[in-house]
Amino acid sequence: MMRWKKISDAVVRRLPLYLRVLEEAHQSGETKLMSSHELGERAGVSPALVRKDLAWFGEFGKQGVGYEVGYLREELRKILNLDREIRIGLIGVGSLGHALVRYNQQRYAEDSHFNLHIVALFDNDPSKVHRQLDGMLIHPIDALAEVTKQERLQMAIVTVPAAAAQQVADRCVEAGIRAILNFAPAKLVVPAGVYLANADVSLEMQRLAYYLGE
Amino acid sequence: MMRWKKISDAVVRRLPLYLRVLEEAHQSGETKLMSSHELGERAGVSPALVRKDLAWFGEFGKQGVGYEVGYLREELRKILNLDREIRIGLIGVGSLGHALVRYNQQRYAEDSHFNLHIVALFDNDPSKVHRQLDGMLIHPIDALAEVTKQERLQMAIVTVPAAAAQQVADRCVEAGIRAILNFAPAKLVVPAGVYLANADVSLEMQRLAYYLGE
Repeated sequence: MMRWKKISDAVVRRLPLYLRVLEEAHQSGETKLMSSHELGERAGVSPALVRKDLAWFGEFGKQGVGYEVGYLREELRKILNLDREIRIGLIGVGSLGHALVRYNQQRYAEDSHFNLHIVALFDNDPSKVHRQLDGMLIHPIDALAEVTKQERLQMAIVTVPAAAAQQVADRCVEAGIRAILNFAPAKLVVPAGVYLANADVSLEMQRLAYYLGE
Repeated sequence: MMRWKKISDAVVRRLPLYLRVLEEAHQSGETKLMSSHELGERAGVSPALVRKDLAWFGEFGKQGVGYEVGYLREELRKILNLDREIRIGLIGVGSLGHALVRYNQQRYAEDSHFNLHIVALFDNDPSKVHRQLDGMLIHPIDALAEVTKQERLQMAIVTVPAAAAQQVADRCVEAGIRAILNFAPAKLVVPAGVYLANADVSLEMQRLAYYLGE
């Protein structure tokens, strides 16, 4: 499909928030039309910003009528590439890694539209490698390039210790993975064209701690 | 200590990134002085923005000399309220909750300066309540207000299913908790004066998926 270049990441970050509101409204069947005011209120964004964000991608609403919930939901899913399965490898099968696999399997099983799918596991611990976890084989990290090709992985979730995270990210990049979600408490560097998101729990907690002093 | 009002959250979000770079440099003993250029490069922020962010809180660097690593680290820890223990309750002891508890206990044990401490657990599942997990008793959610007082909880981590998250957040607010880290895939509403951070894994993955189409 057509891609829209140079759309700021701040806009991209809000799209999943809009999608979630639309999914909820669609599933509950509560409404077929939604104003930018309601969509914004439920997503925590001003109505003007909702209209501006969506206008980057086309004309989805009618003035004075609002957005058609089912249609906008479909369009947002296409824009976010969530209209097809995205195959994900998880690297580092510790307790956090394991929890994420379980969480993902549950979401994937419950919601036929949830196309983010962890399909391959990797670890370097000899006591884990070549064993099964929740029905999936744990591959050695050395097999990353090969399994990425075989399993058509597009995204990686990194749940290794901080000291190993950059090396693992480098190997993901070499293997052709273009999106990395990093849980390790380490600042990673990836080349242009590879997209990185940090889900470092400690950083969020440290940010919240700031406000406890007010 | 003195608090600085009206500092934008965008500034606050970058402080833990600076702190991490300083912690690493301090621990490795590699350097006693760091320029805004190096600090910025390692934190992924421009040198000008580093200087601007830190200037909100005082004069920490000397022009042409840089920041004294140990001193700035101490000051940032004070600004973020991380110079003292922050006591945290975790609500929802499923696999993600359990993984976060383990992760926290490990960080807390390894690093004497890591003052974010999960000290109380809550769940509503009768098969979990009143049992021990990793040395901590699991309380019923009904005991939230009482245990918050007893244990002097200041922060809550919410790892319950989406459908229960708002109700749990409301109860945290009633109990006097002022900072909530939400892992549930739900948009929560909290009153002014209560600070919320979202660590919804799916949202980050959905955002990354956008870039896979480019």
